[in-house]
Amino acid sequence: MTDPGARTLDVSAIQALLHPESIAVIGATSDANKLNGRPLHYLRRDGYRGRIYPVNPNYEDVIGFKCYPDVESLPEAPHMAIVAVAARRVVAAVEALGRKGTRIAIVFSAGFGEMGDDGQRLERDLLDAARETGIRICGPNNLGVINAFDGVTATFSQYAFEPPVVGPVAFASQSGAFGTGIAALARNRGVGFGYFVNTGNEVDITLTEVLEQLLEDDRIDVAAAYLEGLKSPQSLLRLADKAIRLDKPLVLTKVGRKAAGIRAAASHTGALAGEDAVFDGVARQHGIIRARNEEHMLDLVSAFATCSAPQGPGVAIITQSGGAAALMADRAEELGLEIPVLGEDTQAQLREVIPPFGVPGNPVDLTAQFIAEPNVLTKSVKIALADPVIDIAVVWFQLMNAFVDELIDVFLELKRSVRKPFVVCWLAAPEAALARLREEGIFVIGATERTIDVVAGLHAYGEARRRLRGTTRPGNDTAMPSGTDSARPLPSIAARSLLVDAGIPLVDAAFATDADTAARIAERLGMPAAVKIESPDIPHKSAADGVRLGLATTDEIRAAVDDVLAAASEHRAGARIDGVIVQPMAESGTELVIGLRRDPVFGPVVMVGLGGILVETLKDVTFARAPLARGDVPLMIESLKGRAVLQGVRGQPAVDLDSLTDVLMALSQFAVAHPEIAEIDLNPVFARSDGVVAVDWLVLSTEPR
Amino acid sequence: MTDPGARTLDVSAIQALLHPESIAVIGATSDANKLNGRPLHYLRRDGYRGRIYPVNPNYEDVIGFKCYPDVESLPEAPHMAIVAVAARRVVAAVEALGRKGTRIAIVFSAGFGEMGDDGQRLERDLLDAARETGIRICGPNNLGVINAFDGVTATFSQYAFEPPVVGPVAFASQSGAFGTGIAALARNRGVGFGYFVNTGNEVDITLTEVLEQLLEDDRIDVAAAYLEGLKSPQSLLRLADKAIRLDKPLVLTKVGRKAAGIRAAASHTGALAGEDAVFDGVARQHGIIRARNEEHMLDLVSAFATCSAPQGPGVAIITQSGGAAALMADRAEELGLEIPVLGEDTQAQLREVIPPFGVPGNPVDLTAQFIAEPNVLTKSVKIALADPVIDIAVVWFQLMNAFVDELIDVFLELKRSVRKPFVVCWLAAPEAALARLREEGIFVIGATERTIDVVAGLHAYGEARRRLRGTTRPGNDTAMPSGTDSARPLPSIAARSLLVDAGIPLVDAAFATDADTAARIAERLGMPAAVKIESPDIPHKSAADGVRLGLATTDEIRAAVDDVLAAASEHRAGARIDGVIVQPMAESGTELVIGLRRDPVFGPVVMVGLGGILVETLKDVTFARAPLARGDVPLMIESLKGRAVLQGVRGQPAVDLDSLTDVLMALSQFAVAHPEIAEIDLNPVFARSDGVVAVDWLVLSTEPR
Repeated sequence: MTDPGARTLDVSAIQALLHPESIAVIGATSDANKLNGRPLHYLRRDGYRGRIYPVNPNYEDVIGFKCYPDVESLPEAPHMAIVAVAARRVVAAVEALGRKGTRIAIVFSAGFGEMGDDGQRLERDLLDAARETGIRICGPNNLGVINAFDGVTATFSQYAFEPPVVGPVAFASQSGAFGTGIAALARNRGVGFGYFVNTGNEVDITLTEVLEQLLEDDRIDVAAAYLEGLKSPQSLLRLADKAIRLDKPLVLTKVGRKAAGIRAAASHTGALAGEDAVFDGVARQHGIIRARNEEHMLDLVSAFATCSAPQGPGVAIITQSGGAAALMADRAEELGLEIPVLGEDTQAQLREVIPPFGVPGNPVDLTAQFIAEPNVLTKSVKIALADPVIDIAVVWFQLMNAFVDELIDVFLELKRSVRKPFVVCWLAAPEAALARLREEGIFVIGATERTIDVVAGLHAYGEARRRLRGTTRPGNDTAMPSGTDSARPLPSIAARSLLVDAGIPLVDAAFATDADTAARIAERLGMPAAVKIESPDIPHKSAADGVRLGLATTDEIRAAVDDVLAAASEHRAGARIDGVIVQPMAESGTELVIGLRRDPVFGPVVMVGLGGILVETLKDVTFARAPLARGDVPLMIESLKGRAVLQGVRGQPAVDLDSLTDVLMALSQFAVAHPEIAEIDLNPVFARSDGVVAVDWLVLSTEPR
Repeated sequence: MTDPGARTLDVSAIQALLHPESIAVIGATSDANKLNGRPLHYLRRDGYRGRIYPVNPNYEDVIGFKCYPDVESLPEAPHMAIVAVAARRVVAAVEALGRKGTRIAIVFSAGFGEMGDDGQRLERDLLDAARETGIRICGPNNLGVINAFDGVTATFSQYAFEPPVVGPVAFASQSGAFGTGIAALARNRGVGFGYFVNTGNEVDITLTEVLEQLLEDDRIDVAAAYLEGLKSPQSLLRLADKAIRLDKPLVLTKVGRKAAGIRAAASHTGALAGEDAVFDGVARQHGIIRARNEEHMLDLVSAFATCSAPQGPGVAIITQSGGAAALMADRAEELGLEIPVLGEDTQAQLREVIPPFGVPGNPVDLTAQFIAEPNVLTKSVKIALADPVIDIAVVWFQLMNAFVDELIDVFLELKRSVRKPFVVCWLAAPEAALARLREEGIFVIGATERTIDVVAGLHAYGEARRRLRGTTRPGNDTAMPSGTDSARPLPSIAARSLLVDAGIPLVDAAFATDADTAARIAERLGMPAAVKIESPDIPHKSAADGVRLGLATTDEIRAAVDDVLAAASEHRAGARIDGVIVQPMAESGTELVIGLRRDPVFGPVVMVGLGGILVETLKDVTFARAPLARGDVPLMIESLKGRAVLQGVRGQPAVDLDSLTDVLMALSQFAVAHPEIAEIDLNPVFARSDGVVAVDWLVLSTEPR
């Protein structure tokens, strides 16, 4: 599949989609209960100011708009068109629109790619018709778009049963039904979606392309999306980079963990991770904030729309309940946030302000007494935020129906006077209080643990921004090199040369076809040594009983050679056995796996994880897209569950992270320079305080030597 | 600390607390804004039918009730009393009440254990006064209790600003502020708390004791609690057992991961897990459903109040959105639920019912078309639930404001006609629809991923019930044996005898004081062998460079003995060095850690986890309380992240779980029989397909030999 995002963004088409000067509705009807009837009603209701052209041979007039029998008879080329006719009639309609000069068509109709072979054929015909006539397609099988700023309610979504709410969020969804639900939930909590776009089957225009364009709108501060599958990785990466550049956070929910292309490639760790782990790594690398679900997405979106990102991980928790504070502290620790002890000065200042039953540490417990004097809350938050160890404050309390005005005044005063961000968790708050705070641009939420999830999201974005701003990352070719599926292992010595030339440290090794040569080699390289079977048909040497370790004498070497040759023949009858590899035993260290993959979506990706048997069950590996920046490596390591191993445990010294970074950088550069290399596995890699060295390697190439 | 729950439950005191025949309010006032004014207003408003006695020397009458100057002048002993006077006056008031014959006093007043040394002294005085006069205490520092069935609104909680809502949930909280918030959230979502109890500092009556009693009420179906620290483990365990016996789920949120008693005990893995991991394991073992936070708690409580638990893990997901379905399938996999492929018959039946764009697999995608004929939904759910692989159905859709009545009819029909449980996720539902479904006892929620969290909770409870019903578990003494803190390592050979006698398989071993003896022993036990330093001052032999492995000749043995003796002296000057232990090398296997701990809360607990260096960073260990039942072991193993290792990876055979279970059972019995043993570490244990064997062990005893 070619990546549609590799092309230049068609700004004029997306402008026409969301800022149309005129709209035709092909198959229009006056019945507001029908999907082909709704858009006209909505456009009129929401004050769309462009020209509206119903097209339907059966009517002369549709709800007061003059109706045309066909596209040809329209008085002008409509800037945008909605196609709401049966699937089999869509191609003709789009062709007519294209010939007329329409820039883009939204195709509501279902019955395309989602409907088996016939539908896929129809989808190809649709795309051909568009390509031939120059019109672009949004859809098919989608429920339209909304530009709430300009009354462009070009949709049949139930969300538009009520007029859309203007706001600083651009939201796009591949799913119509789920997208509608998310938009409605957003409205219920007072979050305005300035734009709502459903891209359906994405036969042409993709979700990420639309968001790329919408980010440019000054009225938009945050982009959010619901994704099922990525049609255009290049566009996603451009979008992510633009989001960082413009300081407009990008929040994505992506479902599905099925690997789009699980390859049966012969490799040690090939089944470790499907595309989702790669997506996750690439998203983190590019500063995309991934939301687990619709609720998390809306929590984050509301926070980004109102709060600045903290400058660091230090959280002050200020509550009327020690219990809620403990729950938040637990969660903060889980998410890598810090609840630093406040400075002595800060504590002294707090002690003068808070009631005698209160606790001036962090969390700060004001007890319920603060209601008697709301100023206590204002002062406490100010004092805590003034401490240099604190980057963001969380204020938690519940109910207080009788003190809504006082509390709102507290937060207005805080918003006016503090520079660092704060978030409010108000359990079972009166609805009016929530509405008022939201109007004032103060983030408020009603669930204790989700408050900390939001703080972690704000922090992750802040971190990404500091890491990525001002860096330029060279592009890469995400397209899969051809023949990757049938890549074959390179001989170990040839593979070793390639990797060593690339700057990747491997243990010494030489090839032998007989026991005596092997013994001589072992003497030369140093003993104890290892003997491993060498066969293009046996990539997994251990599984074929083809490895002997810790051989201390030339006799043991000779015996091992005979052993592994015999075992290999027995293990796999008919395998081509080339001989054996002899290696000196390396000084062991922390076991890692390092690898290169060609991801079907993102192209070359570098993997690092903890080695040993547990890697296969805990799957504690992480990915990033090549080429890496050095700053990506700490991020990769941070996301390993067992990262503490690298920092040294049980008296072992910490792993040399500089050397590890060098290896990952070298592998990443190698990946970009060598499209013929389909996969590399370095497993195990021994990481020590004085460097890292790979003791086994497998290189799959589409150009085997 | 003695466990207050070890005593017999004081049924009459808890009856008086929640079903008082008369109530005195000590320090009553007529001002409804004051905490000592509110209860009288609430009791009158909510129709409490018992006798009410304000006590305050300053008034003759409080809001129409005759007021008494002191306790002595009351016309009868009030069944229950609320004490709402300043802390320093509480002891006298409680004494007077006790002498008068009052059964129990709720002490609102703060300024006790939470207030440093002075407060703690006052708390001890309070308890002494109660013990002397026979009155029981709820509190101090609490905001009271509510029995919503009988208008006993004996609280100053803001929750009671509006009349409490009757319902099948008994809720108790150690935190007043957080408990109030949770109760208010419950009311907002239509969940009735039949009882609301805040136990505050728990100087006497504990939260779990109250719930034990409330579970007996026929109007209560579910118990829920918010815990900060457990005062009474015995009572918790009795409560959990009763909950299973009566089939009334117990949902707990417990915060705080700080170990109450981190011991500096010399042991391999002593710092692995604080008390929270133990609490978690014991809760799971006893069928307690642990909720992460207040939202999760209320989701579960509502579900348990309306749904039966499924008979197995098979979930049918029926939606109008493939996207939401994918998100739920992702979550289901994470939580160990199954989304089984429906049988051919089931699929054929579905195909006849669902629209042509739909998908009859599982998830079942009905598309939005089902609105045209709601019967499609009814039929689809019935067909899916009739499949034997399905135990519970999830129905997901959004909005549908125009079809509320039709949808409610669908669910009423389902409730009437299906036997298996189903849950509804309705995104952005009209409020009226939610209220209606709740009235009809149909579980509905508005967040996609949380729906699956709820299904997992229902499933976990169903599993626990099947596992625990009809079993009787012998009790144990949760009290810490004295002297545990100063327990010392037993000599390795003595420790070995103890463990072997207990039925725990250990590798052979013998003690030697010199190199020649060690060499002779090694020849007898078999080589290759290991030599390890033996010193009561060096429990961590490896850290002292005191271990030599894989010694193949007597010469190597001799050299190793000299080596480790020298290294030990150097490592720890002045250490008493007894000699060395010689062991034959065991055939390696999957590395586990197994241990016994004396938890300060739950007494003897058995630990099992994955060994190797990662155990210390991933902390992948799990606990259960001794004595174990065999059925507890699979549950322990299920909760290990790396459990797949035990099932065999990379061609390794699966570990012999029967043998592993035998070892854990033996250790558990040993723990109960030997209170002098403070701690046991078997690390590593090699688990193979033909058994398990510990190759290193450390036994700490309060009676060192």
